[in-house]
Amino acid sequence: MMPSGRRGPRYDFRVVEAASTSLPGLLRLAGMADTVRAAVQAAPGVIEVREFPRPVVGPDDGLLRVEANGVCGSDVEIYRGHLRPMGQEGGGPVPFVAGHEAMGVVEEIGDRAAGRWGVRAGDRVAVEIIVPCHACRRCLAGHYQSCPNRRYNHGATGIDVAPSLWGGLAEYMYLSPGTIVHPIDPGLPAEVAALFNPMGAGVRWACHLGRVSLGDTVLVLGAGQRGLCSVIAARAAGAGRVIVTGLAADARKLALAREFGADHTIVADEEDTVARVRELTGGDLADVVLELTPMAAEPVTDALLSARHGGRVVLAGLKGDREIPLRTDVIVNRALTVVGAYGVDHRAYREAIALIESRRFALEKLHTHSFGLEETVKAIETLAGGTAIHVSVHP
Amino acid sequence: MMPSGRRGPRYDFRVVEAASTSLPGLLRLAGMADTVRAAVQAAPGVIEVREFPRPVVGPDDGLLRVEANGVCGSDVEIYRGHLRPMGQEGGGPVPFVAGHEAMGVVEEIGDRAAGRWGVRAGDRVAVEIIVPCHACRRCLAGHYQSCPNRRYNHGATGIDVAPSLWGGLAEYMYLSPGTIVHPIDPGLPAEVAALFNPMGAGVRWACHLGRVSLGDTVLVLGAGQRGLCSVIAARAAGAGRVIVTGLAADARKLALAREFGADHTIVADEEDTVARVRELTGGDLADVVLELTPMAAEPVTDALLSARHGGRVVLAGLKGDREIPLRTDVIVNRALTVVGAYGVDHRAYREAIALIESRRFALEKLHTHSFGLEETVKAIETLAGGTAIHVSVHP
Amino acid sequence: MMPSGRRGPRYDFRVVEAASTSLPGLLRLAGMADTVRAAVQAAPGVIEVREFPRPVVGPDDGLLRVEANGVCGSDVEIYRGHLRPMGQEGGGPVPFVAGHEAMGVVEEIGDRAAGRWGVRAGDRVAVEIIVPCHACRRCLAGHYQSCPNRRYNHGATGIDVAPSLWGGLAEYMYLSPGTIVHPIDPGLPAEVAALFNPMGAGVRWACHLGRVSLGDTVLVLGAGQRGLCSVIAARAAGAGRVIVTGLAADARKLALAREFGADHTIVADEEDTVARVRELTGGDLADVVLELTPMAAEPVTDALLSARHGGRVVLAGLKGDREIPLRTDVIVNRALTVVGAYGVDHRAYREAIALIESRRFALEKLHTHSFGLEETVKAIETLAGGTAIHVSVHP
Amino acid sequence: MMPSGRRGPRYDFRVVEAASTSLPGLLRLAGMADTVRAAVQAAPGVIEVREFPRPVVGPDDGLLRVEANGVCGSDVEIYRGHLRPMGQEGGGPVPFVAGHEAMGVVEEIGDRAAGRWGVRAGDRVAVEIIVPCHACRRCLAGHYQSCPNRRYNHGATGIDVAPSLWGGLAEYMYLSPGTIVHPIDPGLPAEVAALFNPMGAGVRWACHLGRVSLGDTVLVLGAGQRGLCSVIAARAAGAGRVIVTGLAADARKLALAREFGADHTIVADEEDTVARVRELTGGDLADVVLELTPMAAEPVTDALLSARHGGRVVLAGLKGDREIPLRTDVIVNRALTVVGAYGVDHRAYREAIALIESRRFALEKLHTHSFGLEETVKAIETLAGGTAIHVSVHP
Repeated sequence: MMPSGRRGPRYDFRVVEAASTSLPGLLRLAGMADTVRAAVQAAPGVIEVREFPRPVVGPDDGLLRVEANGVCGSDVEIYRGHLRPMGQEGGGPVPFVAGHEAMGVVEEIGDRAAGRWGVRAGDRVAVEIIVPCHACRRCLAGHYQSCPNRRYNHGATGIDVAPSLWGGLAEYMYLSPGTIVHPIDPGLPAEVAALFNPMGAGVRWACHLGRVSLGDTVLVLGAGQRGLCSVIAARAAGAGRVIVTGLAADARKLALAREFGADHTIVADEEDTVARVRELTGGDLADVVLELTPMAAEPVTDALLSARHGGRVVLAGLKGDREIPLRTDVIVNRALTVVGAYGVDHRAYREAIALIESRRFALEKLHTHSFGLEETVKAIETLAGGTAIHVSVHP
Repeated sequence: MMPSGRRGPRYDFRVVEAASTSLPGLLRLAGMADTVRAAVQAAPGVIEVREFPRPVVGPDDGLLRVEANGVCGSDVEIYRGHLRPMGQEGGGPVPFVAGHEAMGVVEEIGDRAAGRWGVRAGDRVAVEIIVPCHACRRCLAGHYQSCPNRRYNHGATGIDVAPSLWGGLAEYMYLSPGTIVHPIDPGLPAEVAALFNPMGAGVRWACHLGRVSLGDTVLVLGAGQRGLCSVIAARAAGAGRVIVTGLAADARKLALAREFGADHTIVADEEDTVARVRELTGGDLADVVLELTPMAAEPVTDALLSARHGGRVVLAGLKGDREIPLRTDVIVNRALTVVGAYGVDHRAYREAIALIESRRFALEKLHTHSFGLEETVKAIETLAGGTAIHVSVHP
Repeated sequence: MMPSGRRGPRYDFRVVEAASTSLPGLLRLAGMADTVRAAVQAAPGVIEVREFPRPVVGPDDGLLRVEANGVCGSDVEIYRGHLRPMGQEGGGPVPFVAGHEAMGVVEEIGDRAAGRWGVRAGDRVAVEIIVPCHACRRCLAGHYQSCPNRRYNHGATGIDVAPSLWGGLAEYMYLSPGTIVHPIDPGLPAEVAALFNPMGAGVRWACHLGRVSLGDTVLVLGAGQRGLCSVIAARAAGAGRVIVTGLAADARKLALAREFGADHTIVADEEDTVARVRELTGGDLADVVLELTPMAAEPVTDALLSARHGGRVVLAGLKGDREIPLRTDVIVNRALTVVGAYGVDHRAYREAIALIESRRFALEKLHTHSFGLEETVKAIETLAGGTAIHVSVHP
Repeated sequence: MMPSGRRGPRYDFRVVEAASTSLPGLLRLAGMADTVRAAVQAAPGVIEVREFPRPVVGPDDGLLRVEANGVCGSDVEIYRGHLRPMGQEGGGPVPFVAGHEAMGVVEEIGDRAAGRWGVRAGDRVAVEIIVPCHACRRCLAGHYQSCPNRRYNHGATGIDVAPSLWGGLAEYMYLSPGTIVHPIDPGLPAEVAALFNPMGAGVRWACHLGRVSLGDTVLVLGAGQRGLCSVIAARAAGAGRVIVTGLAADARKLALAREFGADHTIVADEEDTVARVRELTGGDLADVVLELTPMAAEPVTDALLSARHGGRVVLAGLKGDREIPLRTDVIVNRALTVVGAYGVDHRAYREAIALIESRRFALEKLHTHSFGLEETVKAIETLAGGTAIHVSVHP
C-alpha cells in the first residue's frame, strides 16, 4: 500500500519501516484508533477523504492532533492544477495530503524530538510548512526557509512517502524529525491561532523586509489575508500612516483594513494608485511599499512609482513567471531597494504568535469561514470566491 | 553680460553682486590675470572656449585652479543633446561650463570656507559634483547626494548664474559655499588623481551598495571606466572571484580587467552570460552583481538570473527611461535584493581617494588619453569612440 | 557691552557686527520692542533675568518667539556647577542664556534661511540644541550630532557672542544660520510640544540604537522623563514586554510608567534588578536594555547581566567620568552589543514629533510643572527635587 | 569501561549502544585496525595516550582521520586546570580526548551524513568545534555557535560518552550527527589547512564584528596567532592602516605582523598605546579596535580610548571573569559600539578557508611548530612558552 520509491525523512528512515510493519498490533495494544482520516488531493480538482494507518512515533518524531488548518491562496492554485506543490515540481504528480498551515496539539512525541523542539505531549503548537535540512550553508546562516535540500514539507509530500500524513488537512499530521514547531497559547480559539501563518508573512514583509519604523508611511498593495496581516504588523511596529489598495469587489476587506488601523484605502480598479498616494502623502510618497497582488502586472509599476526616494519595495506577489515591463531607471534614480520576499522564518512566526497572543488586535475579525474535513473542497472554493478572508478547516 | 534671472548660490548671494560689480578694479589691484578661459557648451554639439571675469572670492567660497577634469559618459550624452545637465531638466537650455570631475589646487579661499572645508590655499583637492543644501532631511541623514534642493552643481549650472565658472573644463572653477572638497595627495599625476570620480562610483557600487565581503563572487556587467573601477574596488575589499562582461569590441578593456584582478571575462555579444556565470561558479552563481551598462535591456535580465539565492543586484546603468520586460518572480523566488545606485557619497569618495593614494593598484593603466582645454570636443569624442577608458582634460 | 573675543557664528559673522552697531535705531524705526528679556546664568547658582537688544535678522538667520523651554537634568547640573555647558569645557566660565529645549513660533526669518529650513514666519517649530558645521565628515555622513566643529549650541553659548540670545530661557531665541528646526503642530499645548526633546531621546535610544522589534522584552533602567519617554517609544515600536526600574522615591513615576504601558516596574533600591528580570522573563532576560541613570555605577552592571545572549545594551547615563568595575567577560560570553548613546539626530526628533502629534499616548501626563521666565531657578530646583517629571518655562 | 551516565549524542543514541556492544567483532570482520590512539587529558597536568575501540559508523555519523589539530591558547589553560572544557563547567571533571581544531580526511561516513554534510569518504575537511542542536531559536536564526543545547563539542566531551573519540588529538575523531564540516583544499600542507580555526576567528572579529571597510584604520591589541590572523583578515578586507600591539617579548610576532601588512607595531609594555595610536593616526584614532589579550585589564581601557568617535570595539580577550574598572562615559561620549566576540560561525570559517586556499598570504609563516601525538604535552608547553605562534599536532 505504501510504495517507497521516494526517499524517506532525512533524519530517520526507521519510521518508515516501523510504520509499514508493526503498526496495527501496537495500536491495538494502546487502545487507540488505528486509522487517520485525511483529505487527499488525488489529482487537480479531485480531493477525497481517505484513511491511513496511524503513524508510530519514534524517538525523533511526533504526531500532531490537528485542530485547525488555514487555507492559503496557493491551496486554491494547487487544487486547480495551476501550481505544483512545493517539492513536486520535478516529478510526476503524486497524491498528497493537502494543508500547510496546521496547528493543534502534540499527541505523541519522541524523547529526542521533545528535547530538540522544547515541547511535550499535550502542548499546543503551530507547525511551519518548511522542513529544512538544518545542515546546509543557508540553514546554518539562519535562512532555512531557502534550504535547497528541504523536503517532506507539509501539505506537499506525496502519500507514497511514509507515513503519508504530511498535510494539515487530516485528523493527525506527522511531525518528521526536522520539523519546526512553535508553542502557542491554548486559550486562543483554534481559528485565531491558525492565523500564525498569514500573520508571520505580514510581520516578515512589513517589519523585517520592509523595516517599517516609527512614523513611516506604508503602502500595502493587495487586501487579502496577508495584506490585512501586513497592515496589522505595520501598525504594531509603529507605522505613522498606512494605505491599502484593493479592488472594488474587496470593499469588505478594505473596510476591515480601516478597522485594523489603515488610514486610507484606495480602490485600485477605480482610482489612480500612484496619484492618490502622492496626494495622501502631500507628495512625500511611501517609505515602504509591499506588493502582494497575485498575477497582476500593474501593481509592480505602482509599487516602484509610489515609493519615495530611498524607499523600500517588498515584492511578494507572484506573477506566474510572466515578464513585466518595468522602468528600471526609477529604481536607479530613486535609489530604491527592492526586496524579494521569499518564505517566512522562525523569528517572524515567533513575533507573529506573540502579536496574536497579545490580543492587541481583534484578529478574530479576519476569520470568516470554518469548515470540517469533509468540506475541504468547499473551504478551498470559498477562499477562491474572493469575499472570504481567512478560511480554516477543523478536522 | 550676466543676467541674474536665476537664483544665486544658496549660502551667499553677495558673491553674485560682487562679481557683477567691482571685479575688474579689484583684480587689477591684485595684479592677477583678470579673465578665465572655459569650455562652454552653448548648445548640443557646440562647445567653445570663452573668457569670463575671474571671480572674487568672499569669506564663504573659493576658487580652484583646475589641473585635470575627467570626462564622463554623461558628458558625451549631454554634448549630443541626449541628456540635459542635472538641474536644467525643467527649464530651457542654458549655456554652461561643462565638466563635473574636477581636481586641482585651491587658488583662493575665504576664511570661513577654509574653516568649514578644512583646507587652505595651495592644497590639492578633488571636488564633488553635487552642491547640496546641507539642511534638508536627506542632507541631515547623510544622503546629500539625493538632496532635492541641490543646485549649482558643477558642470551643469548656466553661465547666467554668477560667477559662471561652475564647471571643471576651465582654468579656474568656482567653489560655492556648499561645495564639498577632498584633499588629495599632491604627489599623484593629475590624471590619476582625476580618477577619484569613477573610483568613487566603483567603491560605492561594489562595496557599499553591493556589500562585497571576503571571498564573494562578484559579477560586473559592463567594462567601461566605472566597470573597471568596480573590479578594483571589489578586489580591494577581498572579493574571491570577479567576473566582468564586455562587448567583443572591448577586448582591450577586458584584458585590463584581468590585469586588475578579474578572474574571468565574458564577451557578452558572443557568449551566454548567465550560462557562463553558472559554469564558472559551479552553479553557485554570483553573490553580488553590478549592472552598469548604459541603455541595454538584456543585461538587467542577465543580472537577475546571474545572482544566487539571497544575492544582491546593484543597478547603475540608466536605460533612457525605457521599460524593460523583467520576470519579477525571479526577485521573489531568489530572495534577491535589488538596489538602485544613485549618486556617490562622501565616504565612497574618501575611500576611493585612500585607495588611489595607496598606489596598491596600477591605476595609471586606466588612463588612456589627456587633452588640453581647446581639445575638449576631441576629448569627448574620444571617450565616445568606445576604445578609450579614462580621458581627462588638463586646462 | 558685547566684547567679541570669541568667534561668531560659522556662516555669518555679519550678525555680530550688525548687532554691535546699528541695532537700536533699526528697531525703533520698525516699531518693535527693542529689548528681549532672558535668564542668564552668570555663575554657578546664579541665574538672573537680563535685557538684551533684539537681534536684527539677516538673510541667513531667524528669531524664535519662545513658547516653552523644557528643563533638562543637565540644566540642574550646570546650575549647580557640576557640569560645564557644552562648548565651554575648555575656557573660563562665561555668562550665558540657559535653556536648550526650546520651541515656539518663528517671529522673523531671512529669505535664505526660510528656503533652507523650509519654514516661514509664523510657523511653529521645535529647535534642536546642536548647531553643527554641516560640512565635516561626520555631518556629511548624517552624524551631525557628533560634529566636532559644532558651536553656538543653544543654551550653552556665552552672551559675549553676538547676539547673545542663544538660549531658550528668553522671550526670543536667536536662530543662527546652521540651526536645525522641525515644524510642529500648532494645535498642541506648548508644554506637550516641548516634550519633543526627551521624546527624541526615547526614540533614538529605544528604537534606533536599541533596535526594539516586535515582541521584544525591553528593560529601561531609570524612570526620569527620558526613561518614561523610552517606555513610550518602545511601546510604540511594538515591544512585547517593558520593564522599568526606579527608586522607591519614584513611586509616582513608576505608576506613570505602568500607565504608559510598562508591564512591570522594579524598585531598584529594594529589589534585586537582575533577579527580578530573570524571574519576570522566565529566564530569557531582556532583548534590549537601556541604562539611563545618572552617576550610578550599579545599574551598568545590572544592564549587562539583565541582557540576554546576543542582546543590545544602550548606555546613556553619564557617570561623571568615574571608573566602573565591570566584568567584560559578560560582554564577550553573552555576545552583547553595547552602544554609547551620544546625542539625538534629526530622524529621531522627527519620529518623536510625529508620535507626539499622533496623540496616541496621553503625553500631557508627563508634564508636571510650568513656570514663568522669572521663576527659572524655581523650575530648575523643582526638577532637581526629584518628584517632578517634565518641567517647562514659558517666557 | 564506558559508563553512560551522561547523555549520548543528540540525533543518534544507537551509536552508544553499538559502540558498547558489537564493536570488536565487526571491526575484525572488516579487516580494519580495531583500536584508535588518542591523547587523553585525565586530570589537570596529566595527558596520556590511550587506546579506544574504533567507532562503528552508522547512517548519520562519520569518522575523521586526523591529519592535524591546531593547539589553542585555551588548550593551555585547560591543561593547567585554569579553565574547564566547554560543556564540563557544571559537573565533576571527566577525562576527555583533547583537541578542538581538527582537520583531516573523511575515513568513513554514513549515507545520510554524506547527504547532509555534502561530503564523501576521502574528502578533506576542517571540523568546527561546536556541535549545536540545529533546532533551537538561536540555531534557526543562524547563531548556532551560541546554541544553549550544544554538547559533545570536539575536544571537550568526556570519554564516558561513547564513542569517546570526541577530540582532534587522536588518530581518528568521531563525527557525530550534528557535526559541521568544511571541505578544504587537499593541496594545502596540513599545518596550513589547520589554520582555518584562528583564521576563522580573525575573519569574524575583524570583518564581521569589526566591519572593517575600505581604508579603515584597524588596531589589533595582541599579537598571538589570532591577532596575526586578524591583521591578515583586516588587510584582505581592504583596511587602510593596521596597527598591532604586543609585548617586548613578542618581537618576532610583531615582525611577522609587519610582514603580513601591519603598518605599525606598538610595544605595549614600553610605549603608551593610546598616545602612539593618536600620533600614528594624526589624532584620528582607530575606526575599529580588536581587544584580544587574555587576562590583561589595561588593554580594555586602551581599546576604548584608541577608538574614534563612532568607532567599533570588538572584545574577544577573556579576563577570567575579573572586574575591570572602565570609564563608561567614554563609550557614551564617543558613541562607541562595543561588541562581544563569542564564537565563530560557518560564514567566517568559510571565508577563512577561501582566504587560505587563495594562497594570497604566506600563511605558512604563521606556523612554527609541528608535533606527533606522543608529543602533545610538549606541543601545549611550546605554545605556552610564548614565542611559538601556530603549533599543531599531527597524529
